[in-house]
Amino acid sequence: MSTWGNQVKISIFGESHGPAIGCVLEGLPAGETIDFEAVLQQMARRAPGQDRASTPRKESDTPKVLSGLLNNVTTGAPLCAVIANTNQHSADYRKLLSVPRPGHADYPAWVKYHGFNDIRGGGHFSGRLTAPLVFAGAVCRQILSRRGIIIGAHAFSIGTIKDMPFAKVKITNEILSSLSREYFPVLDAEKKASMYHEIEQARNELNSIGGVVECACIGVPTGFGGEGMFGGVESIFSSILFGIPACKGVEFGAGFSAAKLHGSENNDAYYYDETGHVKTRTNHAGGILGGITTGMPILFRCAFKPTPSIAQEQQSVDLTRHENTTLSVCGRHDPCIVPRAIPVVESAAALALMNLPGILCCTAEV
Amino acid sequence: MSTWGNQVKISIFGESHGPAIGCVLEGLPAGETIDFEAVLQQMARRAPGQDRASTPRKESDTPKVLSGLLNNVTTGAPLCAVIANTNQHSADYRKLLSVPRPGHADYPAWVKYHGFNDIRGGGHFSGRLTAPLVFAGAVCRQILSRRGIIIGAHAFSIGTIKDMPFAKVKITNEILSSLSREYFPVLDAEKKASMYHEIEQARNELNSIGGVVECACIGVPTGFGGEGMFGGVESIFSSILFGIPACKGVEFGAGFSAAKLHGSENNDAYYYDETGHVKTRTNHAGGILGGITTGMPILFRCAFKPTPSIAQEQQSVDLTRHENTTLSVCGRHDPCIVPRAIPVVESAAALALMNLPGILCCTAEV
Amino acid sequence: MSTWGNQVKISIFGESHGPAIGCVLEGLPAGETIDFEAVLQQMARRAPGQDRASTPRKESDTPKVLSGLLNNVTTGAPLCAVIANTNQHSADYRKLLSVPRPGHADYPAWVKYHGFNDIRGGGHFSGRLTAPLVFAGAVCRQILSRRGIIIGAHAFSIGTIKDMPFAKVKITNEILSSLSREYFPVLDAEKKASMYHEIEQARNELNSIGGVVECACIGVPTGFGGEGMFGGVESIFSSILFGIPACKGVEFGAGFSAAKLHGSENNDAYYYDETGHVKTRTNHAGGILGGITTGMPILFRCAFKPTPSIAQEQQSVDLTRHENTTLSVCGRHDPCIVPRAIPVVESAAALALMNLPGILCCTAEV
Amino acid sequence: MSTWGNQVKISIFGESHGPAIGCVLEGLPAGETIDFEAVLQQMARRAPGQDRASTPRKESDTPKVLSGLLNNVTTGAPLCAVIANTNQHSADYRKLLSVPRPGHADYPAWVKYHGFNDIRGGGHFSGRLTAPLVFAGAVCRQILSRRGIIIGAHAFSIGTIKDMPFAKVKITNEILSSLSREYFPVLDAEKKASMYHEIEQARNELNSIGGVVECACIGVPTGFGGEGMFGGVESIFSSILFGIPACKGVEFGAGFSAAKLHGSENNDAYYYDETGHVKTRTNHAGGILGGITTGMPILFRCAFKPTPSIAQEQQSVDLTRHENTTLSVCGRHDPCIVPRAIPVVESAAALALMNLPGILCCTAEV
Repeated sequence: MSTWGNQVKISIFGESHGPAIGCVLEGLPAGETIDFEAVLQQMARRAPGQDRASTPRKESDTPKVLSGLLNNVTTGAPLCAVIANTNQHSADYRKLLSVPRPGHADYPAWVKYHGFNDIRGGGHFSGRLTAPLVFAGAVCRQILSRRGIIIGAHAFSIGTIKDMPFAKVKITNEILSSLSREYFPVLDAEKKASMYHEIEQARNELNSIGGVVECACIGVPTGFGGEGMFGGVESIFSSILFGIPACKGVEFGAGFSAAKLHGSENNDAYYYDETGHVKTRTNHAGGILGGITTGMPILFRCAFKPTPSIAQEQQSVDLTRHENTTLSVCGRHDPCIVPRAIPVVESAAALALMNLPGILCCTAEV
Repeated sequence: MSTWGNQVKISIFGESHGPAIGCVLEGLPAGETIDFEAVLQQMARRAPGQDRASTPRKESDTPKVLSGLLNNVTTGAPLCAVIANTNQHSADYRKLLSVPRPGHADYPAWVKYHGFNDIRGGGHFSGRLTAPLVFAGAVCRQILSRRGIIIGAHAFSIGTIKDMPFAKVKITNEILSSLSREYFPVLDAEKKASMYHEIEQARNELNSIGGVVECACIGVPTGFGGEGMFGGVESIFSSILFGIPACKGVEFGAGFSAAKLHGSENNDAYYYDETGHVKTRTNHAGGILGGITTGMPILFRCAFKPTPSIAQEQQSVDLTRHENTTLSVCGRHDPCIVPRAIPVVESAAALALMNLPGILCCTAEV
Repeated sequence: MSTWGNQVKISIFGESHGPAIGCVLEGLPAGETIDFEAVLQQMARRAPGQDRASTPRKESDTPKVLSGLLNNVTTGAPLCAVIANTNQHSADYRKLLSVPRPGHADYPAWVKYHGFNDIRGGGHFSGRLTAPLVFAGAVCRQILSRRGIIIGAHAFSIGTIKDMPFAKVKITNEILSSLSREYFPVLDAEKKASMYHEIEQARNELNSIGGVVECACIGVPTGFGGEGMFGGVESIFSSILFGIPACKGVEFGAGFSAAKLHGSENNDAYYYDETGHVKTRTNHAGGILGGITTGMPILFRCAFKPTPSIAQEQQSVDLTRHENTTLSVCGRHDPCIVPRAIPVVESAAALALMNLPGILCCTAEV
Repeated sequence: MSTWGNQVKISIFGESHGPAIGCVLEGLPAGETIDFEAVLQQMARRAPGQDRASTPRKESDTPKVLSGLLNNVTTGAPLCAVIANTNQHSADYRKLLSVPRPGHADYPAWVKYHGFNDIRGGGHFSGRLTAPLVFAGAVCRQILSRRGIIIGAHAFSIGTIKDMPFAKVKITNEILSSLSREYFPVLDAEKKASMYHEIEQARNELNSIGGVVECACIGVPTGFGGEGMFGGVESIFSSILFGIPACKGVEFGAGFSAAKLHGSENNDAYYYDETGHVKTRTNHAGGILGGITTGMPILFRCAFKPTPSIAQEQQSVDLTRHENTTLSVCGRHDPCIVPRAIPVVESAAALALMNLPGILCCTAEV
């Protein structure tokens, strides 16, 4: 569904070339002041055209709030925000999509919607639909941070170039806040040039490149999530993370690497820290055991495939003529979506956290 | 929640040392004949004590159906099946868990449930709770197979030993059916000895080892799933897969490897096959684009961490005395859960498929 | 929640004096042509200021569709429609509501939202929020009518004045279509003058009057609804009907009258009609047995309390001063909401019908 | 669905003549002591064969708890309880139901389930399925009463004989507790003989009679429920109440009578009581305004149709021979279900209350 969540629901609507896109956020507590500048700052991190790594297109993403806020304070009613599409065309070009682009939803959507879906600019499948998700996430993370929960992500890898992982860092509010202010944040500043190089090389070859985003959430108390077998934190997070276009893998803590480890290596040893709290010396569990938060940072990674839109010639089929053909995808596209996906992943994490049962009523404002 | 699904709901109940475990399956179509022998065969694949790779404990997993079946035909009412626990102890040993086992849910569950959860044998977190999931999956896969949808999985890797991947195989009904009849199935029979060796070595060192399960679903028509941004096939599958205890990563198609690829490599080229159907030459998408099925095999992998129960001494804390301590986990435990997890993954896949909107009313019986 | 439905979800947002109100409709089939004029006609039936029975305020309810429609054809993506509030005030008058109006949500909402809800014009509780519900219903009923399902309602009673009930009429498409074109429709035209008189008298006495809306849905095939004990047609309908402001009772078929009957009177006798279909001679069941549609018209009634806003002096409390006080509700209000509630009830019925599992894929277009 | 609820879910399974019926209750807080004797007492109130008003059949309804309880204390895991059917027949009589009983689900269920549903004793539609609902309600009301919330109901009317309504009584814990200990409770003891007489007369005429149950819930604090337009208390309550077999109408407070009132009569005047709490002088709202609890007693009524099983000859159809026919329903049936429905209504209310968001974490134990 385009709606996700149980306690705090998000409903995302819009098509790339329709009049507008937006979201409805339901279940927010009343009385929360929203810093609109901070929201716009998060949306700017996702906006296209920021540097060499992204597409030079201009996009005006200023959201208009239609409900749920009064003088920047939540009213408890559903918050609807709308972002106008400035690139909508009055012309009607509902022609049958004849040649589906490889790696895009074109072909299965054509079958599913019998050709009636709006294919202009990807329609409802467009990456542009992540703009309202970032809006919603920016609102939610303000509410969470007031309760001591901080989220930050970085480019874990671009192609084969790897940043320093969170596992090697003492994760603090400062580090996460710093990451989540930046466009294309990394933990090891020296890796950024290589990453940019990887992306530029792909661009120059009319190609694209994939990558991995790593995200951390700190301040989540022990004992949240894990309502039964299917209500674990991993289930909640993954179900929204896989909603991000191009995400093809999600892992928590050591994740797929854990599958190569022995129990003696992977188990996280408990100890009492100097303040008398139970901690683990390592965090291969990514802050989650039995689906329940352990109080350690929640750590996860999302794998993003390379942008499917590439100018190189590709093999496809002509669905009208029923024959094989080729196509090149024109237009300007990000050769790597990872930099812009980072705030999207953080936003999805914020929504996931807002849906851990009891998280709002059981965490005090700080 | 312990309940999962929208069209076909599964609700799992029970604790390891309580009177019984079981499940309720709701939303099954009426009039489906269930081959009970085939169900028991699937449950036997998950049962412990089958070979060197698993624990030698005996477990009687014969389910008793309380409702929803009449003469082995579904009635359309909820199907409840119960599996008695033969190892329940009459003695009351609700003593406060004092030393949580690393890698288990003990500590966060103790915080969450204030010490009231049944800790005997892992309680509701026990891997034994996957037995009713396999029961339910075995019922569902019969209904799916009648509509041409076949599921099979294999041990993709045990520690560092890798089987041949599905990507290198032409996946047929025969291969999948053969895999899903076996205990500890692999695609390349020659790898099995090394895998067993890896497991035995872990056992001998009082240790355990992780691994990856790879699963394929074929026969799913093009155009299913992807109801909006958050209703994609990956979201549906991952939310149940992460409910399997010890699963810490899920990836579809090329998954995390796709993050290292270029678009020209990762995009799957379309072509018309000899029967006039649209196919892709590769299947890096794992049969899913934009969250919608492409008609190609649905391919995914689940990473399982090494069994946390190991006899080696580990560091932990005494929650009663508030001090650091050590413990060794006694008893007989599987040094690797992958072999027994395979039918569990297949079962979760069956339930996920049953929850693709319209899958039952839009796929004809074959 | 402000979101309702499973197959076809409606999410309603907005506050009476905020920038706009609207809805998101998710799960509509793709390829459905929407007659926008017919939608506006339904919205006009609900709009205020149409005659003596309603308030003379002017309200511009023209909805703007932001997504989900392309050339008036559904795309399968969520359909968002927005209705601007023209009466919004720039001034900030978030003063604490001090004297709650009896019969309104003021007091419990003040407790629930800690004074942060937007109280201007009733905020999210305003009857104006039924405008997007009528929009959504108007869209849905077009899709339903294409499958032979027709909905119509009438003023069953205003105060003590009763219209002819559906039970005394042979309900046809023509009758229902005629009712659902009109403002303030009745079955027995002669009763309308008395009803108007009842309303006018209440208005003249600075008072208000309640009433009952009766609704019929025909063309729903036998065998829909009733997915288990809690998925009956009555449960689905009542859960949305009670969402209509001021609705305090819902009954199906003979309803509360059935409680006075004997089984021999209340049971509906079966017979084969001339076309070989199973029918019942009476329809005390309101077209529903065991929560499942019988193929007979679905019949139900909603009781609406009198408009709580009355100009007579009423006893209340001053929540700031903690003392008893009195108030009179100024402004122009409908002395009876039944006439304008009729299209709202029909719309809720349309949404309820769209959520009977399988209703769209199992009913052919006619 | 057979599953209901969001915070606390109930899943009901079983068929009248299958091996067993039962329920799974999910989302209960851990650490709640359950008085099993009190649970059995509630179930006894619903059991058949208690007096002249009910059927003389014997039914052994002792539930067996399979999970979720350890030493009578909730563990936080799903609580499954099973009630064996002692009247199950080994013989297979799946013959096609040929003559549907008027007023029962037989005919629409036959269409819906294509003849595969278990028709013996009503199958999943049997009133016997309310036994696990009463079990669940009995568990929930203990948890609620520990937080000061008390529920009680009475026979508001049998046929045309009316008991004193709650509106005329000062509702106290004592009154409700007394009602909810009794079989066939009334507020005005003098009315009971007339009610019995009404029922006996129906029995003697081989007929049945309907009635209304009125229920009150006190101790629910102000400000609960009403999460958006469709999350009102009335929507939550009605959706489970209409799941009770034979319930055809639900009204809150003045309900359908409010439709005959003027605003000046129906509005409940506020005042400060001697303890400084806001109260209303009347309670026509039934403790609910804008879908939110007002702090006054929640009051509602459910209309029950007369038992459809009557020994008088009735007109029906033979679905096999496609011709009109007659039938008499043999066997012993309650001529009035109201007395036994009372604890069922209370139980549904308990489940509804458990699903008001925040009710458990925001109400302290008393």
